[in-house]
Amino acid sequence: MAAGNTGEQARQEQFERGMKVLDEINPAVGGTVLTALADISPELGHQVVAWGFGEIYSRPELAPRDRQLVTLGMLTALGGCEPQLEVHVNTALNVGLTPTEIVEALLHSAGYCGFPRALNATFVAKKVFAERGLLPVAGQ
Amino acid sequence: MAAGNTGEQARQEQFERGMKVLDEINPAVGGTVLTALADISPELGHQVVAWGFGEIYSRPELAPRDRQLVTLGMLTALGGCEPQLEVHVNTALNVGLTPTEIVEALLHSAGYCGFPRALNATFVAKKVFAERGLLPVAGQ
Amino acid sequence: MAAGNTGEQARQEQFERGMKVLDEINPAVGGTVLTALADISPELGHQVVAWGFGEIYSRPELAPRDRQLVTLGMLTALGGCEPQLEVHVNTALNVGLTPTEIVEALLHSAGYCGFPRALNATFVAKKVFAERGLLPVAGQ
Amino acid sequence: MAAGNTGEQARQEQFERGMKVLDEINPAVGGTVLTALADISPELGHQVVAWGFGEIYSRPELAPRDRQLVTLGMLTALGGCEPQLEVHVNTALNVGLTPTEIVEALLHSAGYCGFPRALNATFVAKKVFAERGLLPVAGQ
Amino acid sequence: MAAGNTGEQARQEQFERGMKVLDEINPAVGGTVLTALADISPELGHQVVAWGFGEIYSRPELAPRDRQLVTLGMLTALGGCEPQLEVHVNTALNVGLTPTEIVEALLHSAGYCGFPRALNATFVAKKVFAERGLLPVAGQ
Amino acid sequence: MAAGNTGEQARQEQFERGMKVLDEINPAVGGTVLTALADISPELGHQVVAWGFGEIYSRPELAPRDRQLVTLGMLTALGGCEPQLEVHVNTALNVGLTPTEIVEALLHSAGYCGFPRALNATFVAKKVFAERGLLPVAGQ
Repeated sequence: MAAGNTGEQARQEQFERGMKVLDEINPAVGGTVLTALADISPELGHQVVAWGFGEIYSRPELAPRDRQLVTLGMLTALGGCEPQLEVHVNTALNVGLTPTEIVEALLHSAGYCGFPRALNATFVAKKVFAERGLLPVAGQ
Repeated sequence: MAAGNTGEQARQEQFERGMKVLDEINPAVGGTVLTALADISPELGHQVVAWGFGEIYSRPELAPRDRQLVTLGMLTALGGCEPQLEVHVNTALNVGLTPTEIVEALLHSAGYCGFPRALNATFVAKKVFAERGLLPVAGQ
Repeated sequence: MAAGNTGEQARQEQFERGMKVLDEINPAVGGTVLTALADISPELGHQVVAWGFGEIYSRPELAPRDRQLVTLGMLTALGGCEPQLEVHVNTALNVGLTPTEIVEALLHSAGYCGFPRALNATFVAKKVFAERGLLPVAGQ
Repeated sequence: MAAGNTGEQARQEQFERGMKVLDEINPAVGGTVLTALADISPELGHQVVAWGFGEIYSRPELAPRDRQLVTLGMLTALGGCEPQLEVHVNTALNVGLTPTEIVEALLHSAGYCGFPRALNATFVAKKVFAERGLLPVAGQ
Repeated sequence: MAAGNTGEQARQEQFERGMKVLDEINPAVGGTVLTALADISPELGHQVVAWGFGEIYSRPELAPRDRQLVTLGMLTALGGCEPQLEVHVNTALNVGLTPTEIVEALLHSAGYCGFPRALNATFVAKKVFAERGLLPVAGQ
Repeated sequence: MAAGNTGEQARQEQFERGMKVLDEINPAVGGTVLTALADISPELGHQVVAWGFGEIYSRPELAPRDRQLVTLGMLTALGGCEPQLEVHVNTALNVGLTPTEIVEALLHSAGYCGFPRALNATFVAKKVFAERGLLPVAGQ
């Protein structure tokens, strides 16, 4: 692997901090991403973990639950990020958002991104909720 | 279902007006969307029908054929909305746009959104036209 | 004004509920939007208020603070929505998000939308914070 | 100017056909774009006119009025294209869309692109309508 | 086929120049696109080849290798263009970009478009590299 | 300033490496961004420099000139990133892209993102070229 620019020890510590964050919020995903990227771009895998989670996500200025609300909004608005949205709906559930809150966030998104993006995101949530035995969503 | 904010009777009337619009322009789609959303976000299904079609689409200020031209442009430009584009190519045919006009609208889109979006949309149209026995498109 | 499709009384009640929500979360904005749209598209102004706020935002399934986190994410990701972002940064402050949380949400967005979008959104927040005497952001 | 790849005579004929189309639908814009691009990218100016209008827009398969509906949808959905939207709202009026139809197309767009894009586009239309003495929009 | 607006001989020459370019940079793709579009929008197929490659790509002002770097950036940023990205990763390899350079361009994109777009594009590159026996990428 | 997660010394080294890269490719921009963000989000400023340039841009796997081609493509495609595009057109010139190559890259972008995005980007380039006395572009 081409060495990153950060000194090797700091680089490793940052990566381990990222993996620790991921283990808390979504234990399955870190290893999966790293494995999928291992033969094509291990550096991208490293940076997702080390920078995205070890450097940014782990900052205490915003709670994981709040980060996931922002992330659900972004991924819904971007479109074409269904694989990432699936990961983040799972994470959202793991850090304390209820199915009802997630569904409502996606309903809320319709006014800002339109119905097509809201529908696509909601069907991703449906897939995740089904896998976790959370359907039907209570109170809907 | 969590009650919406509009009074229940008005809410029901708005929904029924939306279903009536959908029955005229694309009879299959209303029920399909509602069923797909029933256990995850029936409120989103309600709002697509009641607000999107009962409140907005049914306004007489723009004809359905013209709305579909705007919609084809938007969904092509947004990208990643292939499921919705499939619905709306069907609707476009139902409200009087010819296959030639639809194909030309998507060719026209290339200059504004680029070829990749235009190609993706055209292949959605091809799928719909094939299902309806409209291929090859006459005059192309 | 072309009558909307909802019965006039329900339409009026929905609008008043939306204005009441706006008065609670951002008193300045409802009147401003309605005035700006009065001679071009009063119906769009009506629907922003009546549907966006009276029908959707007022639902209890997601707290205003949480809605604003989703909205900050969406508007940052969409790009080109600086006027709306300015309104929603103000609203975010009004419903209880701290300047530090808002700034962190926008830092967080960099990993999902890239630095250019994150920077544009942060400079909008800077404008709002300056107007409200909130600079420098404590703890940054 | 670097010669384009099409033979010079065909290239010139295509350009003249594009200018003729522009003279019919929006006489001011062709010269303005060419002048603005003259010292930076005259080839881009040539291609907008020659390909965009001489090759595509001039095709009879879709009427100018219908092309403008598609274009209004695309530019609204893309966002950040306010200068082009201003040109195309003017063109839309020139080829027979009424102010009411244009305003309704942008209201319609809210359900597909969300309110922020619909608002931005409507304020561009307001600027154009004001310049042409078309405010307030009748029947709104 | 509806005749294009360019004189038939010039039109044919432009098309042949486009096919010649495509034969040099990606021999498989021209025919595939034309065949896929033959019964729905042969004119779109013609314009991709004749204008996109015969008129623009063939200009000497930017080398094919450099065009592919720009194109990789655009398709990654747009999102939802995986089929086109697959074609252009292949083309990029054909015109001299190394697997390492392509992978690095996509890592670089994370800072401008965010990780989700960078990941989606990298997985498209992985598919192409796998088909061409280029995994694992050396030096990664 | 809230301490980042990377150990303070490594954090500082990464930042200095980023400033060194920026001093080589665009000496004006690092300080400007840091100053503009100082009272609102110094951490965002830090990460742009330390991660964006110290960690990613400085990697030898892709030359600065090539990175700028990718970046021009991304910023053009994203839209609404005119301030960043202005910075990166300047950087592109600084690392060896000629005005003709930049203009051609933006002409090339029209086929992938459409004319509106290509035009907006070209007018940003025009502004930069004018400031640097590079107009008219030779050979155009």
